[in-house]
Amino acid sequence: MPRETWVLGAASNRFGKMKETGREAASRVALEAIQTAGIEPKDIGYTFVANAFGLAERQAHVGPLINTALGIPEVPSCTIESACSSSSAALHEAYVHVAGGFHDAALVVGVEKLSHLDTLTATSYFAIGADYPFESHNGATFPGLYATIANAHMRRYGTQTEQLGAVAVKNHANAALNPHAHFQKPITMETYLGSPVIASPLRLYDCCPFSDGAAALVVVAAEKFPNPRTEPLVIRASTRAGSIADMHDRPELTGLPASQRASHLAFQQAKVERSQIDFMEVHDCFTIAELVALEDMGFFPRGEAGTATAEGLTARDGKLPVNPSGGLKAKGHPVSATGASQVVEIFEQFNQLAGKRQVPKTGLALAHNVGATGSSASVHIFGRR
Amino acid sequence: MPRETWVLGAASNRFGKMKETGREAASRVALEAIQTAGIEPKDIGYTFVANAFGLAERQAHVGPLINTALGIPEVPSCTIESACSSSSAALHEAYVHVAGGFHDAALVVGVEKLSHLDTLTATSYFAIGADYPFESHNGATFPGLYATIANAHMRRYGTQTEQLGAVAVKNHANAALNPHAHFQKPITMETYLGSPVIASPLRLYDCCPFSDGAAALVVVAAEKFPNPRTEPLVIRASTRAGSIADMHDRPELTGLPASQRASHLAFQQAKVERSQIDFMEVHDCFTIAELVALEDMGFFPRGEAGTATAEGLTARDGKLPVNPSGGLKAKGHPVSATGASQVVEIFEQFNQLAGKRQVPKTGLALAHNVGATGSSASVHIFGRR
Repeated sequence: MPRETWVLGAASNRFGKMKETGREAASRVALEAIQTAGIEPKDIGYTFVANAFGLAERQAHVGPLINTALGIPEVPSCTIESACSSSSAALHEAYVHVAGGFHDAALVVGVEKLSHLDTLTATSYFAIGADYPFESHNGATFPGLYATIANAHMRRYGTQTEQLGAVAVKNHANAALNPHAHFQKPITMETYLGSPVIASPLRLYDCCPFSDGAAALVVVAAEKFPNPRTEPLVIRASTRAGSIADMHDRPELTGLPASQRASHLAFQQAKVERSQIDFMEVHDCFTIAELVALEDMGFFPRGEAGTATAEGLTARDGKLPVNPSGGLKAKGHPVSATGASQVVEIFEQFNQLAGKRQVPKTGLALAHNVGATGSSASVHIFGRR
Repeated sequence: MPRETWVLGAASNRFGKMKETGREAASRVALEAIQTAGIEPKDIGYTFVANAFGLAERQAHVGPLINTALGIPEVPSCTIESACSSSSAALHEAYVHVAGGFHDAALVVGVEKLSHLDTLTATSYFAIGADYPFESHNGATFPGLYATIANAHMRRYGTQTEQLGAVAVKNHANAALNPHAHFQKPITMETYLGSPVIASPLRLYDCCPFSDGAAALVVVAAEKFPNPRTEPLVIRASTRAGSIADMHDRPELTGLPASQRASHLAFQQAKVERSQIDFMEVHDCFTIAELVALEDMGFFPRGEAGTATAEGLTARDGKLPVNPSGGLKAKGHPVSATGASQVVEIFEQFNQLAGKRQVPKTGLALAHNVGATGSSASVHIFGRR
């Protein structure tokens, strides 16, 4: 039996353009997460860094740099990459190490800095997460690939542009209340509809931005920290799954098999029902991705997440708040920091630290993340002790 | 208590220049390792890929591609990076997942392809494993950094050029008998001494080559595979450690604290003495690294590994064979494939498949690997069931 495992501390910087280097930002948020947890750096037994595009800063092997900055250079570390789900994969490794009894505390740090690159170079970096010879090489970068999913979804289920827009408007509204967010201005449906088409049917406001950012989590064995000073997140489930990488080989385009499988396994592991989830953070690199995620995980029947969103069910004050942080869409998407930052949001919500974006119920929350167009997916379910 | 965990299958291609892509080579050796283990791809519960320089092929997120090629796209995967110790770190993750009871079988695949880059670009890729702003940015790439270690070692202990040469001559002699090796010709001390200086005191034949290559391991829970068709490697210890990355901040240059710590922990975990180790594979990216490794792990007193090597103690027929595969030095060093390939050698030795390079005793073996100039180190100890 795995040991009960908690997220005891969490921290994030403000996403956007970082002046400092990735290693500096990562070390800073790592220390902040450790301080929030109320433990010492020397308590950390292993450091998992998520940092997919280290080459952008000519710096791989970031773990020893972070550990050195924390005063614990002897602690082992490695970097974990799973495209946009890198720090969710890193959290899974931390969970396995701690729940399996190999260490009592582990550090997860996700960091990315790409803003010093031009947009074309940044897009080409992102594209190496897809199936290069079949997709990226032929010009199918992520806006085009997710546009393909959006087109298929619209054709099969009649999903409307305004329903995609409703995701954007909601997530910008949430981000406007989030001091960690890249974008802190709400947008209107008119602004959304007036924005230029990037890859039809996706418009500018359907797309998440390139962001720099860093987020960190402290994962501990419950039995070793009997008097937590925070409200820890009990990791009720930590699951991952894969699927065929290149989209042309998949039997369908309107859902991501990896999300379906990872969520199925997560609900099994947590022994909870979907109806018990109070709020969640899901992967919305493009607006369509949020709708697909909600359907893949069984929160809405196929083709109905768009209507539900337009009706406000997933708003902060709706029945099932989705992406109260603003999501990748508006909080920003510093690739390898994203998965950890989803958990930072859940930690702040559980600890009543979310200010004006506080959701009403925080008993059970879910974090869903996707690598590339769903060749990897991760689901974590968090409860209270 | 962790479950008894084995390496049940192992495979490597021939290191050197690969015509096929990294994903193709990785998928091929993965299938071969699975077939050697006598299991099915569907038995695999998690795939850990080591691939530090995916950007060289414009392809990150390689796990789903390998799993898809194996017919198991639903299996979760991630990429692990720890500079030159990447696939040793991946093996450690596989060990933790299996020993901890999270999966009954895991796949480790290390792969690297850099031969299509020019040497300068390849050197600059390697250099991102060091501390960039302090080292690589100022021109201190790995030949220079290890030359600094060699100079310090020579000055303090009187280590001789001919002792470094003895490492090169020995490892080339071993590689000449290894069908997986990049270099398959023995060299003489005259050839060594006549080779050009690359970074004083290191000559051409002190340096490992840039190699392409792929190596794979199948890691299983012993209790689930009661009738192995191979002689499995029982993982008696799997340990890692870190240290200060930038060399100018270290208290000494003649040893690597991470190797010292990882080996100390490994001997504790395995509950064996150094004298019980029958042979080992160690990280010898440059000849000096092999001497330092042997001293760091306590096999020879400080400053005496050079004399021991010159006297033949670490030869294939010596008292303690070191790098019977030819080591990074002569088998080649496809960065992320190296750690796994060390274990391939130990697997072949344990299964009496090493042909003319078969070492006499194969009861207990050690694999030691280093990331960068020792900011990470890994030690594995393998025994018989």
